[in-house]
Amino acid sequence: MPAEKDRFLKELTQFLSIPSISAHKDRKKDMHAAASFVRQSLVAAGADHAEISATKGHPVVYAEKLVSKTAPTVLVYGHYDVQPVDPLNEWTTPPFSPTIRGGKIYARGATDDKGQLFMHIKALEMMTKHSAVPCNIKFVIEGEEEVGSPNLGEWCRKNKKKLTADVTLISDSSIISPTTPSLEVGIRGIVYFEVHVYGAKSDLHSGLYGGAVKNPMIALSQILGSLHDKDGKITVPKLYASVRNVSKTERVKMNTRPFNLTHYKKELGISDVVGEKGFTTIERTTIRPSLDVHGLWGGYSGEGAKTVLPKSAHAKVSIRTVPNQDSATISRLFKAHIQKIAPPGVRVEVRQLENVGKPYVLDVSHPGYQAAARAMKESFGKEPIPTRSGGSIPIVPLFKEILGIDSVLMGFGLETDNLHAPNEHFSLTNFFKGIETIPLFYKHFASIS
Amino acid sequence: MPAEKDRFLKELTQFLSIPSISAHKDRKKDMHAAASFVRQSLVAAGADHAEISATKGHPVVYAEKLVSKTAPTVLVYGHYDVQPVDPLNEWTTPPFSPTIRGGKIYARGATDDKGQLFMHIKALEMMTKHSAVPCNIKFVIEGEEEVGSPNLGEWCRKNKKKLTADVTLISDSSIISPTTPSLEVGIRGIVYFEVHVYGAKSDLHSGLYGGAVKNPMIALSQILGSLHDKDGKITVPKLYASVRNVSKTERVKMNTRPFNLTHYKKELGISDVVGEKGFTTIERTTIRPSLDVHGLWGGYSGEGAKTVLPKSAHAKVSIRTVPNQDSATISRLFKAHIQKIAPPGVRVEVRQLENVGKPYVLDVSHPGYQAAARAMKESFGKEPIPTRSGGSIPIVPLFKEILGIDSVLMGFGLETDNLHAPNEHFSLTNFFKGIETIPLFYKHFASIS
Repeated sequence: MPAEKDRFLKELTQFLSIPSISAHKDRKKDMHAAASFVRQSLVAAGADHAEISATKGHPVVYAEKLVSKTAPTVLVYGHYDVQPVDPLNEWTTPPFSPTIRGGKIYARGATDDKGQLFMHIKALEMMTKHSAVPCNIKFVIEGEEEVGSPNLGEWCRKNKKKLTADVTLISDSSIISPTTPSLEVGIRGIVYFEVHVYGAKSDLHSGLYGGAVKNPMIALSQILGSLHDKDGKITVPKLYASVRNVSKTERVKMNTRPFNLTHYKKELGISDVVGEKGFTTIERTTIRPSLDVHGLWGGYSGEGAKTVLPKSAHAKVSIRTVPNQDSATISRLFKAHIQKIAPPGVRVEVRQLENVGKPYVLDVSHPGYQAAARAMKESFGKEPIPTRSGGSIPIVPLFKEILGIDSVLMGFGLETDNLHAPNEHFSLTNFFKGIETIPLFYKHFASIS
Repeated sequence: MPAEKDRFLKELTQFLSIPSISAHKDRKKDMHAAASFVRQSLVAAGADHAEISATKGHPVVYAEKLVSKTAPTVLVYGHYDVQPVDPLNEWTTPPFSPTIRGGKIYARGATDDKGQLFMHIKALEMMTKHSAVPCNIKFVIEGEEEVGSPNLGEWCRKNKKKLTADVTLISDSSIISPTTPSLEVGIRGIVYFEVHVYGAKSDLHSGLYGGAVKNPMIALSQILGSLHDKDGKITVPKLYASVRNVSKTERVKMNTRPFNLTHYKKELGISDVVGEKGFTTIERTTIRPSLDVHGLWGGYSGEGAKTVLPKSAHAKVSIRTVPNQDSATISRLFKAHIQKIAPPGVRVEVRQLENVGKPYVLDVSHPGYQAAARAMKESFGKEPIPTRSGGSIPIVPLFKEILGIDSVLMGFGLETDNLHAPNEHFSLTNFFKGIETIPLFYKHFASIS
C-alpha cells in the first residue's frame, strides 16, 4: 500500500471537498457530484458494474463485484451525504477544504461517513489489483442517512432480489481507541413522542385564576416527573416485560471495556451519574431502555416576569428500546400510561412521531462477527471487544427486516472525531488500518461461511 | 350633568387618542402629551395647582385642590399610560381611534386606566362648578403603571410631605356587574422566580447517554411536579405558617357574590376546577396562596424529532401571597425547598425576579371603605359587595408602606372590558356612574372622618 497512500489521500480530499449536505435543498447538484464520484471510484476500484439509482430523494449508488456463485456475498453499506456544518466559525479550517494536521484529515464527512466508506472502495481496489476478492461484494451507498434514510427502505424493497447477500458490512461507527479495537453488536431502538397538555381555551391572568384552574405546565411536570421511580426504573407498566435479559457472561464482558467513571463525569461536567439500580453506566446506556425529555415549551420565556397562566404546555419525549421490545407495543403502553396519569382539569394528547428505530443485536457467534473479529485481531494484534451502542441506526434493523440479513458494524472512527460537530476529522492511521482490515474480513468470512 | 355629557366624551376621546404606551421607548413624546393633557384637564377642572414632575422614567402628574385645613384629605391615584396593542389585527377599530358602539367606548386605555382616571377629573369639575368640594384632594397620576411602576416608590418617598393624606382613592378595578356594585378590599401579593436546572456542560446525544446522565428536563419536571400535594396545597414547608385566616363571616359573605361554576368552567373551556381542598373557587383565587408555572423552555422545540439530552431546563414560577405572608420569607422558603428537593446529578439555580408585590387587605370598617360603600349605595341603589382580587397591585401596599395610608379600590370597569387585550372598552353608563359616585364618596368621607 505505501505506493498508493498519497493517491488515496488525494482522492479522499477530492471526495471530501464536495459539500454533499443532504439536509440542504439547494445542494442537489453537489449530491449528484458526490454520488457520481462514488460510482466512478467503484468502477476504478474494479467493480463489475456501478450505477446511480434514483429515489424520491437523493440517489443510491449501487455496485457489485461478483466473483463466484459458491462464494458468500457481502453487502457493504455506507453514505455519501454529510451533516450541515454550523457553527461555521468554529471550524479551524473550512469544512469542505480538507486539511491534514497532526496525522488527521479535517473535513465534514471525514469520519461520518465519506472517509469510512472510501476505505471500502480502496480495500476493493487493493484486492482487485494486488490479491484476490474472496467474496461477492455488493455496495449500497446512500445519500440520505443524515436525514433519516427516508427512501432507503422502499429502494431496498424494490431491489430486494438484487441485494441478496449473507451479511451486511458497515463502517459508520467507532473503535474504543486506536489500540483497542471493538465491534458494535447492539444498538437501541427509539420511539419518539410529543406530549401536549391543554388547559383553559386561552391564556389566563395567573392572579385572577391561579389556585383554581389547573396549570398545564404543572400538569405536564407532574406527568414527566413521575416517569421514573426512585430506583431509576421507567414507571410505564409492562415496559420491561419484553426486555431480553443479557447473560451474566456478556454483561461481565461488556464491562471490561475501558471506562473511567471519574473521567466520564469530568468530561461531561456532571456531579454524578444516575440511572437504573443494579446496572453499570455502560449497561444503562446500552442494554437497558431509557426515557428522555428532549424539549419543553409553552407560556412565557422572555425576559422578566409575565403573570400568565398558560393555556398549554408541550414536551418532546422518547424511549430508547432494547431487544426484544416492540416499538408499536411500547408506543401503546406509553400513550395509555400518560392518559392514565393525566391530572384532572387538563386534556392531554400524545402524538407519536414518525422517526422509529428498532433495537438490534448481533450474536457474537454469527460468522460475520467472527470474521470481523479475526480480521481485527490480525490487523490490530488484539481481539476486539464487542460493544453495544445506546444510539439507534434505523437501517440495520431495516436490512434485517427487508433482506433478512444481519449487519456487522466494523467502524474505524473514534468517539472523539467530532461527528456532527465543527472540526470533524479522521485519523489517517485508522483510515489505512481500515483499508488493511477490510480485505482480511472478506478472507475470513469466505473461509468461515 | 346631561349638558356636559357630550363634551366629556369629546374630551375623553381626545385623551384616548394619545398612544401613551409606556413599554415602548419611542413613545416619549406621546407620554408627555398624555401627561400634559392630564395636567391641563386638572387645571380646567378647578385644581389650585397642577404640575408635571419628572422621574427617571415617565413623569408623574401631581395636582391638588385644597379646600380646608379641617377637611380630610384624599389622594387620588391613576395612570395615564396604557398597555401595548398587539395583536393589532384583532381590533375592530384602531386602538387609538376611540369609537362608540352600543353604549361603549372602544380604545386602548378606555377602562385601564385613562377612562377611569378621567372620571375623577370630571368629578372634580362637577364639584367645583355645581356643588362644593368637601375634601382636600391630591392627584398622583403616573405614567408607568403598565411597566410595574419602577419609579413611583422613589417619587413618593421624595414627595412624602406633600402627599400627606387620610386615604387613597383608586379607580383601576371593576365592579361585579352594572347592577351589582362591589369594592375590592383585598389583593394578593406576588413573588416571581426563575428556576434553572443544569446538567452536563453541553447538549448530549440521548442515545449515547440516555439512562446514565440525569436529564435536566426530567429533574425540573420532578421539582415542579412535586410542588402541590394531593389536596392542592403547596408543599413548600412553612409557606402557610403566616397566612392570616379569614373569618367565617367574611368567607360566607365573599361567597355570596354571583358565581356560577358551570358558567365559569364553560367560559374558560375547562373540564373542572382544581385547587386547595376545603376552599371555594372564589377563596382559592383570593384569600389563599397559589403557585403557578408561567413558562417552560429548553432543549428542542422545533418540528420533528431531535434526540438531544439537553444541558439545561428552565421555568418561570410565581407564588401569589396573601396577608400576612412576607415576600422575603416566602422567597427564602421557596429557594431553600427547591434546593432541598433538587434531584442528584443536576445543579439547580433559583433566581428571584425584581417584580415583587405585597398582599393587601382593607378592613371594611375603615372610613374610606364606609364612605365608598355609602356612595355606591346611593348611586347604584344597592349595597356594594366587598370582594378580593387574586391579582396584585404593587402600588397599594407601596402607599401603605411609604405614606402610611390605606387605599379604597372603587373601580367602575367590568371584568369583560378586555383589559390588556384587543377591543378594550368602557361602558359609558359606568363612566357616568363613576362621575356621579365619586363626589358622593367625598361627601360621605368628609362626614365620617
